[in-house]
Amino acid sequence: MAKKLFGVDLGGTTIKFAILTQEGEIQQKWSIRTNILDDGSHIVPDIVDSINHHLDLYKMTPDQFVGIGMGTPGTIDRDKGTVVGAFNLNWKTTQRVKEQIEEGTGMKFALDNDANVAALGERWKGAGNEGDDVAFITLGTGVGGGLISNGKLVHGIVGAGGEVGHMIVKPNGYLCTCGNRGCLEQYASATGVVHVAQDKAEEYEGNSRLKAMIDNGDEITSKIVFDLAKDNDYLANTVVDEVTYYLGLACANLSNVLNPEYLVIGGGVSAAGDFLLKRVQKNFEKFAFPTVRTSTQLKLAELGNDAGVIGAASLARQFESVN
Amino acid sequence: MAKKLFGVDLGGTTIKFAILTQEGEIQQKWSIRTNILDDGSHIVPDIVDSINHHLDLYKMTPDQFVGIGMGTPGTIDRDKGTVVGAFNLNWKTTQRVKEQIEEGTGMKFALDNDANVAALGERWKGAGNEGDDVAFITLGTGVGGGLISNGKLVHGIVGAGGEVGHMIVKPNGYLCTCGNRGCLEQYASATGVVHVAQDKAEEYEGNSRLKAMIDNGDEITSKIVFDLAKDNDYLANTVVDEVTYYLGLACANLSNVLNPEYLVIGGGVSAAGDFLLKRVQKNFEKFAFPTVRTSTQLKLAELGNDAGVIGAASLARQFESVN
Repeated sequence: MAKKLFGVDLGGTTIKFAILTQEGEIQQKWSIRTNILDDGSHIVPDIVDSINHHLDLYKMTPDQFVGIGMGTPGTIDRDKGTVVGAFNLNWKTTQRVKEQIEEGTGMKFALDNDANVAALGERWKGAGNEGDDVAFITLGTGVGGGLISNGKLVHGIVGAGGEVGHMIVKPNGYLCTCGNRGCLEQYASATGVVHVAQDKAEEYEGNSRLKAMIDNGDEITSKIVFDLAKDNDYLANTVVDEVTYYLGLACANLSNVLNPEYLVIGGGVSAAGDFLLKRVQKNFEKFAFPTVRTSTQLKLAELGNDAGVIGAASLARQFESVN
Repeated sequence: MAKKLFGVDLGGTTIKFAILTQEGEIQQKWSIRTNILDDGSHIVPDIVDSINHHLDLYKMTPDQFVGIGMGTPGTIDRDKGTVVGAFNLNWKTTQRVKEQIEEGTGMKFALDNDANVAALGERWKGAGNEGDDVAFITLGTGVGGGLISNGKLVHGIVGAGGEVGHMIVKPNGYLCTCGNRGCLEQYASATGVVHVAQDKAEEYEGNSRLKAMIDNGDEITSKIVFDLAKDNDYLANTVVDEVTYYLGLACANLSNVLNPEYLVIGGGVSAAGDFLLKRVQKNFEKFAFPTVRTSTQLKLAELGNDAGVIGAASLARQFESVN
């Protein structure tokens, strides 16, 4: 019987698991809460336990798997299989993840960062259509990215490749958590959209439900801003204009450099769908090099939350030949 | 005896040739004028003749070579070995370069665009130090680039990868030949530097030799601007400030995406040397993501005019196993 792949998507609130065929079809999936107490020391044991428990449940054995792939936040040493500085997991010191999981499960293990793994997922089974040149931008609490060139992830020399959220789109703009000013993340993440909305509301004096909510002290989300914009709220539309302007500029500059076949936009903010995509596209066309404009295609992500486990599982395919 | 490599660097004014060892050492080099008359129809026959003539001269035969690699302007189909739209060669229709050169010389032939080939050269024997992740920017009449990730050139889906000269550094800035506004090329190429100088001279009212020259109608070059800046001319220094600001921004955004080990700056404008590099570096540090700032190293190119033939020759190494 053909061996299976294990995909794990480790996040700050949940850990998602899936068992997939080598063709990338999910056969089982489940998730557990991430226990970040005690410096995150329960996380890896919890992963091992959950894997072993489900193997029992499905009456499967480690030798029926090619291996396990996992996406994780933090700074990763892919060769050593360690992670450090994943602050939403409380991992402040170096975690020997690969060693512990291989020992605990008896399966081979590979890992990469969460945005890279989501990019691999969208490339394999989603909007990337198995292309060799695919760029992925995820608009969530922050803005992350995963870039695939010649069929391989762009890691760069220390793994900072794909930091598209920190492309500078507005020199001297909003201060970013990274210490720089004007990073894309400060305009196109969920929190960035809200920041832009608050600033624009302050200057705006016309009629607007968005302005009324902000003035009233209601909690604003990126979803509220986009929903009001779709409903023709003037202020909300100026917010979306600004967000999609900087996003279009970043997509164009990224594409002028990489000329990917597909530039895939995912993450929570992308739930605004075609309304978002069309306005990003308009700005992309303004800033993209002519050859790039006609060859790089902007698309919405297709896999939603499954991108992580699917992409993670694809990491395990490197073990196919040795199993 | 170990086989040799042939490198050809096809430009609008000269065609450079070199015979190299497989270790990248140049053993012979020469060049001929590019004859662009009659729709550039003499170019390929001239290349074939020059190669065959020099084989005779050195009493060598085609089977002593792994193959020929060539860098060329224009839009390239690497699989078919054709070139189209190389306007400085007068090549308006599709040229079957590979077919004609293989037939005419009896050697295998591969080609890529000139900036990519120069990047390969700098990576192999120059500032790139054989790194797997190297970015190359060339500041000449225009601004070109060649990007290497995971040891391979980033071509993208239709070969527009590496168009760093068309990254937008100033939305709504100077109009570019590509039709967009604010491309890096309009600020950091030799002509861009002069354009910035002319605009700044118009507003400036203080003492400046640069301003005096421009007001006098003297012909200004990028070299003159940098030489005057080194000599503490105030206006020339504001020009260099602006040029290196946009260049530093582009280098940072490129590095935030690719995190190369080395970002190599070459081309005529880079003759300004450390004076240029230091000011680009200052702006790069302002705009680069912290991890990138400490891991990506900016360097000046080291091979000068030889980068083209050396990088071109490296293309022929793909034939090593089949010869």
